[in-house]
Amino acid sequence: MKLLEDRILKDGVGIGTEIVKVDSFLNHQVDVELTDKIGEEFARIFAESGATKVLTVEASGIPAAVATARAMGNLPMVFAKKAAPNTMVDGSYTAPVKSFTKGTLSTVRVSKSYLKAEDKVLIIDDFLATGEAAIGLLDLVRQAGAKCVGYGAVVEKAWQGGAKRLEELGYRVESLAVISSIVDGNINFK
Amino acid sequence: MKLLEDRILKDGVGIGTEIVKVDSFLNHQVDVELTDKIGEEFARIFAESGATKVLTVEASGIPAAVATARAMGNLPMVFAKKAAPNTMVDGSYTAPVKSFTKGTLSTVRVSKSYLKAEDKVLIIDDFLATGEAAIGLLDLVRQAGAKCVGYGAVVEKAWQGGAKRLEELGYRVESLAVISSIVDGNINFK
Repeated sequence: MKLLEDRILKDGVGIGTEIVKVDSFLNHQVDVELTDKIGEEFARIFAESGATKVLTVEASGIPAAVATARAMGNLPMVFAKKAAPNTMVDGSYTAPVKSFTKGTLSTVRVSKSYLKAEDKVLIIDDFLATGEAAIGLLDLVRQAGAKCVGYGAVVEKAWQGGAKRLEELGYRVESLAVISSIVDGNINFK
Repeated sequence: MKLLEDRILKDGVGIGTEIVKVDSFLNHQVDVELTDKIGEEFARIFAESGATKVLTVEASGIPAAVATARAMGNLPMVFAKKAAPNTMVDGSYTAPVKSFTKGTLSTVRVSKSYLKAEDKVLIIDDFLATGEAAIGLLDLVRQAGAKCVGYGAVVEKAWQGGAKRLEELGYRVESLAVISSIVDGNINFK
């Protein structure tokens, strides 16, 4: 997605060889107009997927997931939680997610009421790196007996192998901007 | 907002005397069409506020904040974080937030790059209860030398006193649905 790549080149910051800082428009401060265009692009790409629900994980995947759900005709959007609120009383599916950057193990969870066997789930997230978060979300979908019809990432860090890992599991992976490397602060696309 | 009150009566669940479960459409599964209408209503209410930025806190305030920013002419939206990601390298404003329901103390933070002295900030959140989260966000705005031009909550639990607390501090508070009590599972509006 050229608009997104141009924006990453303009406002993104490469730090070391691993980190892409895009928090001025994607995952801390949010450019709402760009987010809408991201949603429209995912809707175009996954138009034939048969998705009935969009799934993401809190927090920074939410804007793109909302925009995608809207552009696909106001599908219900569900965001997996990292903590169990006191309203989650109907039972939930849970899966562990390891964070390579933070070195922590967390749990993602979705209420059993909002993932059903008949759901065809499109997973949307802001970043695809090692694929750990995606694997956790896919586990929730599997537990519900639902089907994942695709996975969309706004930004992919190709060298961390997440896309390959998900594709080897049989999933369709689409990233709007695929970064191949960061060298001396320069962000290079595939 | 009648549409919202009707939806709360239809799909919301009152638990005990304190908890309103609206996670089928507001803060776990999200009805994107309703969220857009919520954003349009906040945009109408705060049309003359002069807001230049919308602020919320992750995670469940994000959909309404995005929709509001969008309806106000694509204002930048910023969500405060509860953890410091490895991309938050420019320094941040932080404030403590006590959770009455979870009994925990957390920290909300915003990068200094995304709250500036010239910002006129509209704060949007999904729930206003005791006002603790709002007080934390207001502290971030104060630290930046910015001005808060209003606070909007999708749902207010009036008996927990948050609106009174914020109004006594001089802020304009607008809630789209004000719940006065929960009795025997019945949700009553003010």
